[in-house]
Amino acid sequence: MSVSNSFKGHSRDIERKIIDWYRHLHRHPELSFREIETSRWIAERLEEMGIDDVRVGCGDFSSGVVAEIGKEGPTVALRADMDALPVVEDTGLSFESENVGVMHACGHDAHMAILLGAAEILSSRARELPGRVRLVFQPSEEASVPRSGADAMVDSGVLDGVDGIFGLHVWQPLDSGILGWSDGPLMGSSDFWKVSIEGKGGHGAMPHQTADPTVAAGAFLMALQTIASRQTDPLDSVVVSVGNLRAGEAFNVIPDMVTIEGTARTLSREIRDELPGRIETLVVNTARAFGCGARLEYLKNLPPVINDGKMARRISDVASGLFGEDRVRKIRPTMASEDFSFYLEKVPGAFVFLGMGGEGGADWPHHHPKFRVNESVLVDGASLLSSVAWDFLDNRD
Amino acid sequence: MSVSNSFKGHSRDIERKIIDWYRHLHRHPELSFREIETSRWIAERLEEMGIDDVRVGCGDFSSGVVAEIGKEGPTVALRADMDALPVVEDTGLSFESENVGVMHACGHDAHMAILLGAAEILSSRARELPGRVRLVFQPSEEASVPRSGADAMVDSGVLDGVDGIFGLHVWQPLDSGILGWSDGPLMGSSDFWKVSIEGKGGHGAMPHQTADPTVAAGAFLMALQTIASRQTDPLDSVVVSVGNLRAGEAFNVIPDMVTIEGTARTLSREIRDELPGRIETLVVNTARAFGCGARLEYLKNLPPVINDGKMARRISDVASGLFGEDRVRKIRPTMASEDFSFYLEKVPGAFVFLGMGGEGGADWPHHHPKFRVNESVLVDGASLLSSVAWDFLDNRD
Amino acid sequence: MSVSNSFKGHSRDIERKIIDWYRHLHRHPELSFREIETSRWIAERLEEMGIDDVRVGCGDFSSGVVAEIGKEGPTVALRADMDALPVVEDTGLSFESENVGVMHACGHDAHMAILLGAAEILSSRARELPGRVRLVFQPSEEASVPRSGADAMVDSGVLDGVDGIFGLHVWQPLDSGILGWSDGPLMGSSDFWKVSIEGKGGHGAMPHQTADPTVAAGAFLMALQTIASRQTDPLDSVVVSVGNLRAGEAFNVIPDMVTIEGTARTLSREIRDELPGRIETLVVNTARAFGCGARLEYLKNLPPVINDGKMARRISDVASGLFGEDRVRKIRPTMASEDFSFYLEKVPGAFVFLGMGGEGGADWPHHHPKFRVNESVLVDGASLLSSVAWDFLDNRD
Amino acid sequence: MSVSNSFKGHSRDIERKIIDWYRHLHRHPELSFREIETSRWIAERLEEMGIDDVRVGCGDFSSGVVAEIGKEGPTVALRADMDALPVVEDTGLSFESENVGVMHACGHDAHMAILLGAAEILSSRARELPGRVRLVFQPSEEASVPRSGADAMVDSGVLDGVDGIFGLHVWQPLDSGILGWSDGPLMGSSDFWKVSIEGKGGHGAMPHQTADPTVAAGAFLMALQTIASRQTDPLDSVVVSVGNLRAGEAFNVIPDMVTIEGTARTLSREIRDELPGRIETLVVNTARAFGCGARLEYLKNLPPVINDGKMARRISDVASGLFGEDRVRKIRPTMASEDFSFYLEKVPGAFVFLGMGGEGGADWPHHHPKFRVNESVLVDGASLLSSVAWDFLDNRD
Repeated sequence: MSVSNSFKGHSRDIERKIIDWYRHLHRHPELSFREIETSRWIAERLEEMGIDDVRVGCGDFSSGVVAEIGKEGPTVALRADMDALPVVEDTGLSFESENVGVMHACGHDAHMAILLGAAEILSSRARELPGRVRLVFQPSEEASVPRSGADAMVDSGVLDGVDGIFGLHVWQPLDSGILGWSDGPLMGSSDFWKVSIEGKGGHGAMPHQTADPTVAAGAFLMALQTIASRQTDPLDSVVVSVGNLRAGEAFNVIPDMVTIEGTARTLSREIRDELPGRIETLVVNTARAFGCGARLEYLKNLPPVINDGKMARRISDVASGLFGEDRVRKIRPTMASEDFSFYLEKVPGAFVFLGMGGEGGADWPHHHPKFRVNESVLVDGASLLSSVAWDFLDNRD
Repeated sequence: MSVSNSFKGHSRDIERKIIDWYRHLHRHPELSFREIETSRWIAERLEEMGIDDVRVGCGDFSSGVVAEIGKEGPTVALRADMDALPVVEDTGLSFESENVGVMHACGHDAHMAILLGAAEILSSRARELPGRVRLVFQPSEEASVPRSGADAMVDSGVLDGVDGIFGLHVWQPLDSGILGWSDGPLMGSSDFWKVSIEGKGGHGAMPHQTADPTVAAGAFLMALQTIASRQTDPLDSVVVSVGNLRAGEAFNVIPDMVTIEGTARTLSREIRDELPGRIETLVVNTARAFGCGARLEYLKNLPPVINDGKMARRISDVASGLFGEDRVRKIRPTMASEDFSFYLEKVPGAFVFLGMGGEGGADWPHHHPKFRVNESVLVDGASLLSSVAWDFLDNRD
Repeated sequence: MSVSNSFKGHSRDIERKIIDWYRHLHRHPELSFREIETSRWIAERLEEMGIDDVRVGCGDFSSGVVAEIGKEGPTVALRADMDALPVVEDTGLSFESENVGVMHACGHDAHMAILLGAAEILSSRARELPGRVRLVFQPSEEASVPRSGADAMVDSGVLDGVDGIFGLHVWQPLDSGILGWSDGPLMGSSDFWKVSIEGKGGHGAMPHQTADPTVAAGAFLMALQTIASRQTDPLDSVVVSVGNLRAGEAFNVIPDMVTIEGTARTLSREIRDELPGRIETLVVNTARAFGCGARLEYLKNLPPVINDGKMARRISDVASGLFGEDRVRKIRPTMASEDFSFYLEKVPGAFVFLGMGGEGGADWPHHHPKFRVNESVLVDGASLLSSVAWDFLDNRD
Repeated sequence: MSVSNSFKGHSRDIERKIIDWYRHLHRHPELSFREIETSRWIAERLEEMGIDDVRVGCGDFSSGVVAEIGKEGPTVALRADMDALPVVEDTGLSFESENVGVMHACGHDAHMAILLGAAEILSSRARELPGRVRLVFQPSEEASVPRSGADAMVDSGVLDGVDGIFGLHVWQPLDSGILGWSDGPLMGSSDFWKVSIEGKGGHGAMPHQTADPTVAAGAFLMALQTIASRQTDPLDSVVVSVGNLRAGEAFNVIPDMVTIEGTARTLSREIRDELPGRIETLVVNTARAFGCGARLEYLKNLPPVINDGKMARRISDVASGLFGEDRVRKIRPTMASEDFSFYLEKVPGAFVFLGMGGEGGADWPHHHPKFRVNESVLVDGASLLSSVAWDFLDNRD
């Protein structure tokens, strides 16, 4: 892009506004798919900016906001997520959550404020826009049950006519001022699995009259390690973790069944597709060795976040133009997950990390009761999203 | 013994009484250490027989009955247990439990009726008795928490001055009419153990930042099998079973801790003493291999029932005299347990099984809602206990 | 038996002969199925006693001696085994092995001398014998390959017309002068098993291109423990042990295959029959869990030594008459094995242990280079075998 | 670099020479540290080119050649490896190995020919060279015992005064014509480990008298999987594989000891340093759980090949200039290893893969008896090495 197309200078002017928005949102957090007041308030702000086409709701859900700026032509989407977490805030901020037990502890308040900032910048020059920018304020990024918000948004048609999409996450592990990007995988898939190992319980004194599922469970817990250690390429990243174990009641009665739930994660769509079969092969045969049966339930929650190479280079280049090359850093992925991946399954796009930690930045990790956003990076986020949207519409190839 | 000392003929006369007692007790079951009405009723029956020395209560508990027949001289104890189980009866008997949800499903009602029968026989010839018979109606055989009834009885002094003790259990797995005995181990010890494997939990996507206790638990569940398979003599009988497993909540969070509870059983006092150390060695070192810690809790509930050889041969000989040799059978032990073992830790004694299953006998196993006693064997039990008591007092060596 | 039928006094007269025979045999040990000189020498001794019917050889083998004393009537067999071990003797005895590297380190020399002693006693009163005594000097008790000597003897018809059989083993773990017996299982079965776990080898750096059989082997080694710990009644005695493991060559190449050989032992014929299926279920399914295949080879070497109850009580009673009740002790079985079991599969019989350890007795365990026999017990063995044979023929029921 | 500095055109002229050299070397392969004739022949070729400073030998070894071209100034090293493999060639090439059982099955013959080609190019313009090029023909890349050739070369001072180093590997898995590079890790470390699990052997029938190391080995084989699955970041690449297992002899004797050898590999220097401690913690504690001891031997064979970012970008840029951007590809690492890593531990450098597979290229994998080089890529290799050397000397920053 040419630097002239960037909104660097412009967005500095609205820094105060963005911070005020952020603080308001932080003070009024709402849980996944209950972002009703948040949606109403976002819609009001967008309408104040003179944006006509503002719709609230997402499929069957009442939260979520979609709006458009610009005119006929190529269309780019910018996305922010809206939900807060069931965390009791302990930041001591003057604008602490007024909804006790609920807290914007992941930074979605910042994401919304940044996207409002980008909307303000873009709407002020809406007539010049060489296409259309769709603003996507998405509910329920944190919860996969009943479903992920991005998945619901995609189903409700939010990507219809969209040519590309960008999004960002404020990121505490990265130094403030740094823009972290990847031209491939950035975040892991996240799926749920549950195995039920079914034996035949009985008196603890008479194991030979039972098929003891606790032993089969022990063998399976060990066997499960081989998915990462033996079955997948060491160059690939795969995690299969156990979250809970449940079996039996009385200490002296061998139980009928053991249930084990866990998560499976990887950066590769192909490996993700293989994981259910791998877990099933391990558990069914291991159980059978001990005279037990086994069933696997597997829920595909979130795909991996895999950036489109060209879109990733575009946002990296725009960021270099805005902030300087030394503030733009190719980073290695994280196994944490994000439902932005649902958009990336459908259209080319890129997701980036806006650093806000390091010296003088945010101290506490995401999801912590003391988590706080470094407000000084917010305006950079608005700059970046508005600039990359313009660049995308302006430089088609 | 000489057959003349046996009460074979005599006890036939009181068969009707014993069955009536049994049915009354079956109709009014009470749970462990709550055998208040039962104790009162037993005491009344004993007093009706003209037995003066009847005491109710056992240490701090209000249930249990101890009475004495005879005079200065050697002393032999006869024991019955009193408590019922939290089982909803489904026998359809005319004298079904009136205390809904509580049932004499193990046969302790029969044991009490048998001991009352023995008391009736012995008290009718009390002056001839060459010593003293102490009748022990013990609470709480089924429950080890807060404590076992036999243990409480021993602590309250019930064995003071006692030279020997006998007891029996009506036994469904054995054919009716058969007296099963052993001149050594008859029933297993039963202890409680709990291991807590303490790791460091964390995000399911980042196992390297955790010490995953579920893997250590899996390894321990397998390692535990070696106590029976490698660490103890194949000629000895040892069982270590897991009753329950608990770990974690969310499927995608590696838990901090796994707890595993189980039972440990054996027929040998020496092996029993070694088991806590064996479990601890396994769990502490296994946990350590995976960067976790581990703690063992071990509660010694019940010792093994190990009959004194001479006492066992005495009751076997008395039974042969009463019932004929072909109805007296040396049997192999069971890993099930009985708190009669507490008495055997203190004085020589023997515990036997009075068969009541087989063709025409009781169909359902002990502790089952349809469990029922074969009433035709009750009078044999009273014969046996009264005869062996007399024999013990009469034939000292 | 009546004591008058016993050969207690008589056999004392020949004690010197027995010891001389023992020493000669000790000096000239021969390995399994190579007992050629031993057979010739035994046959000469028997012929010297005036026994006509002496045959050398056993089926296809050239060693082994069978002879008969007495006349038409019931027939009882007495058995001794003949082979020595590939052990370099280190006893310092004046009659040390002259066949360097071969040693009677198990006591078969004593068994032959004892049976010669019994033959001498019985043949001196051959005309009075109320039936026939078949003397069985059996080759190859130690080796199962190509086959066990007892098995070969049975196949060659040595039990034809035999009504009962007795045998004994000098026994170092038992005190000298004690006769140990059991009215059921005395010694374990001993079978051979081998599993081959077949995966797909490859570069140690690329496990995902392989099916790693070493991991499946690890899982199987643990799973195998459950045969003793979970699958069989704790009251039964079962051992499955691994003797060797083999896999791979280069440290950095994942091997194609792991082989594991071991032994399986139990005191029960029924459990013995189940063991191949149990091992196969464990290994096939465990291997399958890890993408490997598995094969089991299982060779039934030796059945358990299970005495006939009546025959056992007979030899125990005879021993009590000879030595006194306090020298006759019911003992618990050992998991070690003996091919006497092949005879017991065919005819009623009993095998007993003649104690020769304890204070003043033999110090070193069987099979040790310093193992030696306590010569003072040999004459008791001859007494016992001759007496029990007579008793068996004389007291038929 | 400016394209004018590249030797693209020039090297085409010598393509024939390089191929002839390659074929000669292929015909005369020699094993690790026995590259005596190879060294003599290389030295002759270099001297023919007018290079004066040619030294043969490497420390205590008689093979290896080092030569220099150019003058005082910055110094860059170019490296080729020289040893062949103990493989029986099965290519059917007209220039098949004349040293039966030894074969250049990895492509070191190609590497030497390429480096001779680069030497020819550079020596023809030696006076213009803005510094010095050190040609390193290194013995023993394949063998780590007695030591790796690169390690020996470094010790003998081959890097003294060197400012940078480049090397390449002809690479069958990569399409012909493609230059594969990485600006960080390219190949894995490769270390040797051996664990000895020491128990107490004994009779297979009496496991309780032993400390069975085969069970501890089974548990360790499973526990070992957790290094990759739990202990290291899923984003890092770590492999720990078992190459061989050894334990015991007789099937019915529990062995005293199990030995397990394997390889440990990773792309990270830090993780590499942690691996011995991780294996030791696993084996020592696992063994202890089963009453066994354990020892770890760990030999650090080869570090990971981690390219210097600037040097990697330099050779990538030079390759783009020579071959076009579309033939230069950033690739992901392989867990295979290379002793070029020893040079990279000392000086900045880069190692690249010269593709020679794909359609029309080499069919069989490295180390296979049918492996063959695609001769058409050799001249590109010479071009690249001579050009990047010149570029390095010419463009210092």
